[in-house]
Amino acid sequence: MAQEVYHHTFPNGLTVLAERMTHVRSAALNFLIPAGCANDPPDQLGLASVLSDLITRGAGSRDSRELTLALDNLGLDRDESAGVVHLRFWAATVARNLPAALEIYADILRRPHLPPGELAPVQALALQDLQSLDDEPRQRVLVELRKQYFPDPLGRDRRGTEAGIEAITPESVRRHYERHFQPRGAILSVAGNIEWQPLLDHVAKLFGDWQGQPPAAPALGARGARRLHLKKDTHQTQIALAYPSVPIGHPHYYQALGAVNVLSGGMSARLFTEVREKHGLCYAIWATYQTFKDRAAVIAYAGTTNERAQKTLDLTLAEFERLAKGIEADEVLRLKAGLKSSLIMQEESTSARAGSLASDWYYLGRIRSLDEIQKAIDELSPASILEHVRAYPPGDYTIVTLGPEPLQTPRDS
Amino acid sequence: MAQEVYHHTFPNGLTVLAERMTHVRSAALNFLIPAGCANDPPDQLGLASVLSDLITRGAGSRDSRELTLALDNLGLDRDESAGVVHLRFWAATVARNLPAALEIYADILRRPHLPPGELAPVQALALQDLQSLDDEPRQRVLVELRKQYFPDPLGRDRRGTEAGIEAITPESVRRHYERHFQPRGAILSVAGNIEWQPLLDHVAKLFGDWQGQPPAAPALGARGARRLHLKKDTHQTQIALAYPSVPIGHPHYYQALGAVNVLSGGMSARLFTEVREKHGLCYAIWATYQTFKDRAAVIAYAGTTNERAQKTLDLTLAEFERLAKGIEADEVLRLKAGLKSSLIMQEESTSARAGSLASDWYYLGRIRSLDEIQKAIDELSPASILEHVRAYPPGDYTIVTLGPEPLQTPRDS
Repeated sequence: MAQEVYHHTFPNGLTVLAERMTHVRSAALNFLIPAGCANDPPDQLGLASVLSDLITRGAGSRDSRELTLALDNLGLDRDESAGVVHLRFWAATVARNLPAALEIYADILRRPHLPPGELAPVQALALQDLQSLDDEPRQRVLVELRKQYFPDPLGRDRRGTEAGIEAITPESVRRHYERHFQPRGAILSVAGNIEWQPLLDHVAKLFGDWQGQPPAAPALGARGARRLHLKKDTHQTQIALAYPSVPIGHPHYYQALGAVNVLSGGMSARLFTEVREKHGLCYAIWATYQTFKDRAAVIAYAGTTNERAQKTLDLTLAEFERLAKGIEADEVLRLKAGLKSSLIMQEESTSARAGSLASDWYYLGRIRSLDEIQKAIDELSPASILEHVRAYPPGDYTIVTLGPEPLQTPRDS
Repeated sequence: MAQEVYHHTFPNGLTVLAERMTHVRSAALNFLIPAGCANDPPDQLGLASVLSDLITRGAGSRDSRELTLALDNLGLDRDESAGVVHLRFWAATVARNLPAALEIYADILRRPHLPPGELAPVQALALQDLQSLDDEPRQRVLVELRKQYFPDPLGRDRRGTEAGIEAITPESVRRHYERHFQPRGAILSVAGNIEWQPLLDHVAKLFGDWQGQPPAAPALGARGARRLHLKKDTHQTQIALAYPSVPIGHPHYYQALGAVNVLSGGMSARLFTEVREKHGLCYAIWATYQTFKDRAAVIAYAGTTNERAQKTLDLTLAEFERLAKGIEADEVLRLKAGLKSSLIMQEESTSARAGSLASDWYYLGRIRSLDEIQKAIDELSPASILEHVRAYPPGDYTIVTLGPEPLQTPRDS
């Protein structure tokens, strides 16, 4: 299927990306604004998240209620969320409603009311979101792992801190919005049954006269501890691990992805087979790849009974170490089949395509065609993945556990 | 977009359903076997779930490892799970791999090894799955709500009980499989880039000579308590509620769906607006509709701080009661926009379509066209939804809470 992909960067720095998919009736949109929680002032951690809630409570000519009604009237399935780097506005609906949706998003991004009277309930919700982590050990161990592994502010969690959320004022939200909501570096991507030129004209009308530039991304600080145990009287022990990998722009990127898939790319992959199936050690175990522009990690998780936790950790680490000892041809055939199947699913989903357009542009400054990705997957081989694993062997682990007792971990390398 | 939908029931009782979607490259399949956990023997609760794991550990000419490899080689994204009524086998991949996938599923469904040596690790995993509920209060309160609300065995959770899982033997799994894995009442649905006649011929070859009939569905027993508090020293209080609604085959079905969407169909819906947005009372709140063939419920959930829990419950109940007092025209316009937008998303997803084909057939004995559903949504009005709400007013609540302290609830009606 030939892709129809378009891009344009306005003089003000806003980039518009689109993929025309004529076989669907829906359209999805995705705004990335470089105002994620990495930009939160250190004494107001949680500010990006609070802003992502407050920003839809009235904008342009509509008050909070009218704005929500207008979005629901368009049948929008939508979400606003604070990531580390970006605030993300996602929505999907019938393609014919896209122009009207964009008009409302122009109000939200450019003319939000940020009503002082609604800050208190938004703060109350943010505090609850934060507190609920205490009752969700699976989430919490992964949040803590990222905090330890990545240098601040890249390891931050959107939920912030209690003190940070409580320190937020109507003025500080407004100031944060004005500093960070700027067209330069912002990305709008659209995928679905759209036509490019009318879309571009519409976006030009709504965003062409937007002006401004956000501050530079914050400097990186120190990373956290390589070992951390969170003592909690739970029935299960949660285990989270990370080790360094290469970022998405790196020449080894697909090989790194291949290596993670040898570990965790399907039900026959090594972690699932060796730790879960053969020994019944843990119900849930997986490894995944997470990237920023200049650094990346393989992140793994296992949740198991307290009694089985040590053996689960030991076997998981043994599987990491075994990667460099050899990779079978049939393992690579299988992971290629899985990756290609996922790619085909993605090409059929407007939301997935809109997300990929935006993330490609942010990370790579260009959009990878599905053919390019397919070719890179086709070229993976045991030798190419081994080459990567031997150049970047798993090691220097960060290990966070949560449960009644700490586990024995290998010494820091 | 004209739909191409097909169905055929073989003399042995197996029904095959298909939707041809020529604009995609993928295909999804869905087997429903009436062997869900409602059929678990009372002293072996958890058996269906154990069977759904063990059944892929070797089948036909392949041992456990070979079977997993064969499925992964086809790039299958897949899942086997035990619901209340059905064991469900779901898979999606590139359409050209569908025939090979069906051959493997024929082995799994008809010629599983159910190896005695793998039962112990499968039981260990099932026990862990069960125990992890203790650390997941959100899941747990909803599991307990269903147990209390629906008459046994419809209220069962797949996870079973510790004693039940431990009582399972290789012989009991084999016996359970032989009783319940029968073609009569089984449904296979496929959606994607397929051709009907070759598909039907292939299925006939693989399943045409399958013979047998499962036992009748188990008789219904008593329901549980209308009020239950699970004492636990958590930071948040979890609230789950249910009240009766009409099942999917009922003439009021779409009106009932409309009523739930007035409560919880978008960000402007009543529960989100009144309980979350205006008062910041709880981070998560929603209501949904769950149906069996002959009965259904509206199920609602809220999670909040212990201090705000009572007010959250009171306001939620007040919103239920307010339904019968009136519904605005613009509320109905919005929920119709949302339902139609969801319908369009669904028509673009092979997995969603395969799932809908099978559930329509099971519940209704026929497949609703997207046009039929769209027409029913179009016909919703404030008057029609009110008519339903007044005929079936919310009441006779089942309320389960989890947290440090019980809440005050209205008296049983």
